[in-house]
Amino acid sequence: MKKVAIILSGCGVNDGSEIHEAVLCLLHLTKQGASYQCFAPDKPQQVTNHLSGEADAGGERNVLVEAARIARGEIKPLSELAVADFDALLLPGGFGVATNLCDFAEQGANMTLDPEVLAACKAFASERKPAGYCCIAPILIPKIYPAGVKGTIGTDAGVAEAFNAMGGEHVGCAVTDVVEDSRYQVLSTPAYMLAKDIAQADTGIAKLVKRLLAL
Amino acid sequence: MKKVAIILSGCGVNDGSEIHEAVLCLLHLTKQGASYQCFAPDKPQQVTNHLSGEADAGGERNVLVEAARIARGEIKPLSELAVADFDALLLPGGFGVATNLCDFAEQGANMTLDPEVLAACKAFASERKPAGYCCIAPILIPKIYPAGVKGTIGTDAGVAEAFNAMGGEHVGCAVTDVVEDSRYQVLSTPAYMLAKDIAQADTGIAKLVKRLLAL
Repeated sequence: MKKVAIILSGCGVNDGSEIHEAVLCLLHLTKQGASYQCFAPDKPQQVTNHLSGEADAGGERNVLVEAARIARGEIKPLSELAVADFDALLLPGGFGVATNLCDFAEQGANMTLDPEVLAACKAFASERKPAGYCCIAPILIPKIYPAGVKGTIGTDAGVAEAFNAMGGEHVGCAVTDVVEDSRYQVLSTPAYMLAKDIAQADTGIAKLVKRLLAL
Repeated sequence: MKKVAIILSGCGVNDGSEIHEAVLCLLHLTKQGASYQCFAPDKPQQVTNHLSGEADAGGERNVLVEAARIARGEIKPLSELAVADFDALLLPGGFGVATNLCDFAEQGANMTLDPEVLAACKAFASERKPAGYCCIAPILIPKIYPAGVKGTIGTDAGVAEAFNAMGGEHVGCAVTDVVEDSRYQVLSTPAYMLAKDIAQADTGIAKLVKRLLAL
């Protein structure tokens, strides 16, 4: 049975992991016979009210504690992720990737990654273990892999430009499809960067998970 | 296209809607060609830390605002649910059902339903529109339908006893199956009351949604 490490960034599309994408990742890993362990950085995060879409000015939560909601409590601090224990890595999207796993939301192409996220993702890359990035999570790829690495965030021109400015080579991709850079065993799919409903996100994520487990 | 109303109870297995179940409900409705609208009561809730499992003594959140995380912001206050606009009703589980939609967690078989929840669920029952209840949500059924109504929460003896004490007739059921009381068009499935993984919950929920849309 293949073991997959999942990095979550909180719980909710606007300030954490996109919930549908995260659950679809868990669903397809399980249906395709893999096991998984969720991880998240143990650090504070800002809060967005998902009803109003506004920042909750006084709100502060913890990324690991909130991500535990998606993982039903079965989650570990990202500092405990040992690459030797896993066959592959998987990151769902959500705006938490751009605020809690790196600072893309504020810095754009000048962003830096959270040190624990960088260490974990780089470890999978240097061991040539396959990794899958969904939705906005592929924005991390150029900071992890060598210049020229291919990935997709769908068709958003601004984010694609940032992907290229950081040294990646952005490839346009339909929501139902996956971009693979076989040199580095890295996969990406647009999910809710393009998906109009959960069934569209499901198709691309199912395909990505299938390929992740095949590599 | 059939339209289904979904009642959420927050966001997280220990103090709100069980996230996997809620997402699987949305997924299967969409894959089977239905549309949906999420609702939740606009009222305060207590908070459980999902990493430690402990109550967050100082924590207070709002059921509707937290449920908006699962619904990606596309949610309305339960007070706005008009039964005439929908063909069916669907409730995922999670401990929030027992704390935010009723007070089963504290009162057991002496529980009362939140007045908005009671009004909404009774309206679907009296119009004979089909309704599906997952996991712990079927505990509401005896308070909505006439005495002798059949439903399942799986095999938990204590909860089954409370179901019967409130006037229902509990039916044991496997996680992959659905109990239907065709007199009242009400369906239930155990989901995470019994599921050992998300794929098991998925099987029962897919079956419940299929039957809900066929009725």
